[in-house]
Amino acid sequence: MKKNCLIIGAGGVAQVVAHKCAQNNDVLGDLHIASRTVSKCDEIIASVHEKSAMKVDGVFKAHALDATDTAAVAALIRETGCEIVINVGSPFVNMSVLEACIETGAAYMDTAIHEEQDKICETPPWYGNYEWKRRDACKYANVTAILGVGFDPGVVNAYARLAADEYLDSVESIDIVDINAGSHGKWFSTNFDPEINFREFTGTVYSWQNGAWQSNKMFEVGHEYDLPVVGKQKAYMTGHDEVHSLSNRYPEADVRFWMGFGDHYINVFTVLKNLGLLSEQPVKTAEGQEVIPLKVVKAVLPDPSSLAPDYTGKTCIGDFVKGTKDGKPAEVFIYNISDHKDAYNEVGSQGISYTAGVPPVAAAMLIANGTWDVGEMANVEDLDPKPFLGLLNEIGLPTRIKDADGDRALTF
Amino acid sequence: MKKNCLIIGAGGVAQVVAHKCAQNNDVLGDLHIASRTVSKCDEIIASVHEKSAMKVDGVFKAHALDATDTAAVAALIRETGCEIVINVGSPFVNMSVLEACIETGAAYMDTAIHEEQDKICETPPWYGNYEWKRRDACKYANVTAILGVGFDPGVVNAYARLAADEYLDSVESIDIVDINAGSHGKWFSTNFDPEINFREFTGTVYSWQNGAWQSNKMFEVGHEYDLPVVGKQKAYMTGHDEVHSLSNRYPEADVRFWMGFGDHYINVFTVLKNLGLLSEQPVKTAEGQEVIPLKVVKAVLPDPSSLAPDYTGKTCIGDFVKGTKDGKPAEVFIYNISDHKDAYNEVGSQGISYTAGVPPVAAAMLIANGTWDVGEMANVEDLDPKPFLGLLNEIGLPTRIKDADGDRALTF
Repeated sequence: MKKNCLIIGAGGVAQVVAHKCAQNNDVLGDLHIASRTVSKCDEIIASVHEKSAMKVDGVFKAHALDATDTAAVAALIRETGCEIVINVGSPFVNMSVLEACIETGAAYMDTAIHEEQDKICETPPWYGNYEWKRRDACKYANVTAILGVGFDPGVVNAYARLAADEYLDSVESIDIVDINAGSHGKWFSTNFDPEINFREFTGTVYSWQNGAWQSNKMFEVGHEYDLPVVGKQKAYMTGHDEVHSLSNRYPEADVRFWMGFGDHYINVFTVLKNLGLLSEQPVKTAEGQEVIPLKVVKAVLPDPSSLAPDYTGKTCIGDFVKGTKDGKPAEVFIYNISDHKDAYNEVGSQGISYTAGVPPVAAAMLIANGTWDVGEMANVEDLDPKPFLGLLNEIGLPTRIKDADGDRALTF
Repeated sequence: MKKNCLIIGAGGVAQVVAHKCAQNNDVLGDLHIASRTVSKCDEIIASVHEKSAMKVDGVFKAHALDATDTAAVAALIRETGCEIVINVGSPFVNMSVLEACIETGAAYMDTAIHEEQDKICETPPWYGNYEWKRRDACKYANVTAILGVGFDPGVVNAYARLAADEYLDSVESIDIVDINAGSHGKWFSTNFDPEINFREFTGTVYSWQNGAWQSNKMFEVGHEYDLPVVGKQKAYMTGHDEVHSLSNRYPEADVRFWMGFGDHYINVFTVLKNLGLLSEQPVKTAEGQEVIPLKVVKAVLPDPSSLAPDYTGKTCIGDFVKGTKDGKPAEVFIYNISDHKDAYNEVGSQGISYTAGVPPVAAAMLIANGTWDVGEMANVEDLDPKPFLGLLNEIGLPTRIKDADGDRALTF
């Protein structure tokens, strides 16, 4: 049982987290939000008040914070009395924030794997490079640390666990499919931080197949899916966090991640990548200035948070899980459909931020009421999925299933 | 009658100029080459000696020079006793070098219009913005200044004048077509300085039609040409220097410039331009660094001079000139074919640099022997084209013509 939440970060996902925390502040207690640029926190809090999102009267305060500074994070946790930290800052700050939680005993959550500025897609399993190295430390300190609890990774890990627990006797493959069938109306934009978005796709595509890590290139393996609501969509095998934890829990299953890309995105990506403009390594201009090309690309692209007002259409994210049931082959597709415009109307963010920002708030509520306050480090598939998915049904991300018995909503 | 040449610049075109000057140092006298980075000058001189290019024993010296510093340029002109300056540095230094020539009495040549770092494609006629403002000063100082004496602008201006003088009674249109049908084998590269290359195409496409300036967008107007040697090629109406001087001499004619582009170039260009990566205006990264996107694009692209060893194929550049002859409609195509590999074997540069670098050396020789030492500012079409084209026939850029009488070499 814990209370009082510190949100770290002030981007599009943090905006969703802030609104959802406010909508549930009767459970979560005092709310705090911290970012390098405190004015961005102020704006988020203002938007929370504008929508009268606070369920009950309570604290919501903004703080300036360098989240790479563990001592500063720990000091803020102590000062605010926060027992739950929702880290939705850049993936470069995971380890420093986790360290502060271990130091103070606060529960930790994030939504993406730790990265170092100058490295891309390191040796699989990725979690083994940073987070899992602190597993023993969390256990020793009795610290709850839930890794990757956004939508993907996060909810899709819970879907896989649910399929394995409830719908199949054995699991042969887990294919996670992430389709954004929405339209932002810009010539080109990424849906979240371009730097993080592109970094996902510039390295080796790791999948877990036939009991071993397999390597492919981005856009090398494509598949057309026919999905509920969004219809036929082309998706490509992509490196992604959840492959690296699910393969650890289900080593006998093939685990793959598929992301939908339009030809236009692929073309822009291919041009930028082949020219070297997605590199995280500095280049020197003719004038002698050292510049990281990817940071310049980020600077010229639209701010993803600016897309929200005009974003239309829906996302479909889910897991195709195959295996056997009662000795016969079986397959389920467990999924969620979200709507960009609905997300904007509710919390002022587009659907991609919404799907990533709601789940950590559900997790925080489960830590607050003790259900998920496990006192150790866990990936989402290590935890009982039903209370999590049940809560998500209530707070904006309902789960559906499509299998031999039809396409229907799931309740828990 | 003038002698001793100072070459300013040390890029691919300067390499060609250096070799061609060396091959004709009996006429041109002492040779000097100056650039901000003196090591690049040393490399060029070494390549001249490697090919034993000096026709007679003589001076060839390298100098460090900031060509934006008029006083420094003037001092070097005086120190070296150079009476001829071939400016093949960046187009940002034209006016400071011209000023130094006016001060010292040296003859001036360049191959591209002056540009300021922070402006693109200003009000037509472009020459009116900078160079022509010093026309009276040149005349007063009795300084020969030949503007734009590369291939295009340069040789194509002489072709237009030749067509008007010798093959037509009236001129209705001049369409200059520049096709590079060569292949450099890289995924993408520009053939000369990417910064200058892209700047040519990011602004308004000005053409002179129906007695007035017309504006189009890049890649808006395309035309397929069927040309000698290189065959059918798609070209697009493009803004270019020579349109701005030829329209002044032949205001009754339509004057257009067409450049060949493959779909791949257009795609890369379109992506970079639409994203804002070709902007010459600084942007600020999330980390607060001020960066000019175009300079970063330049930094990641191949150095054009690195293309030369593997470059194959040919260029075709020429003028379609239409009008009347003896009261009947008539058309001529006056053109040159150059070969990338031949250029590399002779001077160590690819064909694009070769076609740009040979003409100013021909012009320098005509200044040295007095023929073009006119003691005033001139665009190439203001000068007698025959000695120029005759000399080019001898030193590497032969002229051909295709008209009702067939396709044949021209002699002068």
